Amino acid sequence: MRVAVLYSGGKDSNYALYWALREGFEVKYLVSMVSERDDSYMYHVPNIGLTELQAKAAGIPLVKGFTSGEKEREVEDLKDVLEGLNVQGVVAGALASEYQKRRVDRVAGELGLKSFAPAWHRDPVDYMREIIRLFDVVVVGVSAYGLDESWLGRKIDEKALEELVKLHGKYGIHVAGEGGEYETFVRDAPFFRARVVFDEVEKRWDNCSYSGVLEVKGAHLEPKGARA
Amino acid sequence: MRVAVLYSGGKDSNYALYWALREGFEVKYLVSMVSERDDSYMYHVPNIGLTELQAKAAGIPLVKGFTSGEKEREVEDLKDVLEGLNVQGVVAGALASEYQKRRVDRVAGELGLKSFAPAWHRDPVDYMREIIRLFDVVVVGVSAYGLDESWLGRKIDEKALEELVKLHGKYGIHVAGEGGEYETFVRDAPFFRARVVFDEVEKRWDNCSYSGVLEVKGAHLEPKGARA
Repeated sequence: MRVAVLYSGGKDSNYALYWALREGFEVKYLVSMVSERDDSYMYHVPNIGLTELQAKAAGIPLVKGFTSGEKEREVEDLKDVLEGLNVQGVVAGALASEYQKRRVDRVAGELGLKSFAPAWHRDPVDYMREIIRLFDVVVVGVSAYGLDESWLGRKIDEKALEELVKLHGKYGIHVAGEGGEYETFVRDAPFFRARVVFDEVEKRWDNCSYSGVLEVKGAHLEPKGARA
Repeated sequence: MRVAVLYSGGKDSNYALYWALREGFEVKYLVSMVSERDDSYMYHVPNIGLTELQAKAAGIPLVKGFTSGEKEREVEDLKDVLEGLNVQGVVAGALASEYQKRRVDRVAGELGLKSFAPAWHRDPVDYMREIIRLFDVVVVGVSAYGLDESWLGRKIDEKALEELVKLHGKYGIHVAGEGGEYETFVRDAPFFRARVVFDEVEKRWDNCSYSGVLEVKGAHLEPKGARA
């Protein structure tokens, strides 16, 4: 089956991609929707060029679509982008967000595409264990009371997962960040031919809103094997 | 007609886009091919995130495809990317390069797509006059004896065109840069809803090879009307 994978560069969309490849699907495109309303849409903010590095590492063309950012338009904007792709299915990294899943399912239905959400309603801890095993994944955004600046840039490993489980008990933080508690970036994956290396990063933290981002100011791809 | 426009962000691909829109074509995607061999494929080199800013300004999804950079593979890589797009035609900014035009024509032919090259064999001076009238366009790369560092970042206006005509007489430089003498970037076009503003640039010049690039380290989009 020829599919497009909805792709933001974080753990969930990389899991969706991993699953699609494992299923033997022909992944024709990664599709990334960018909000036009994002005032901080600067050349150097996290993710703008970074998603492209990941797509290059995976060797799969990246489609960047734009949306006005109004909730009502988002579905139509995604539909416009998918409508021109010659695929039979769409794969998304939705975990537990009914809104996100319904939105993709509806667009897929209207376009006659199959819709897949391989991580849907998986046990968060079990899911995160698989993520850790598969990917080199770091936190690039935080937005929740209980998560502090030290999480920015932190690699998610077993120890980090343990802490997230504790923070779930204490503050109700979703272990897999499904409520937007944290955002991730995958630097390496089994299907990457090169890994993403951050050259220069800067933490931006706002103490009032308990939120922050890791701004990646420079990054490059390093062929695998070049460094252990 | 639903078309894809081959898009690098320079004057010729923006002219191709301008022409397609004027013809009343439905431009579904801008398609940008990136070489995997480019060792300087860093997050902050010219054009990586910049093309995305332009696509956003135009409100047209951008497809970034990757190619190994080997001449024989390039055609196949482009074909793979176009093959998954549900379009009827492809528009390219080729001016005078037989290689480039034949390559696109062949891929289009094999996929049953119409191939358009609206600037093909136009008179260079006449063409450049139209470019100047339509776009805010600057030089971001130079590679020719006779063009010096002062050209990096320079806006192409009537005066610059006059000089290029003189340099053509003196050194044989192609007025429209068709031989790779210079590379351009379009900061504004009639079909942009916002203009690209460079926040931080750095000139990199190599005196031995008479070549250089304008590295754009930061840029953002500014809605039109916000500044005269």
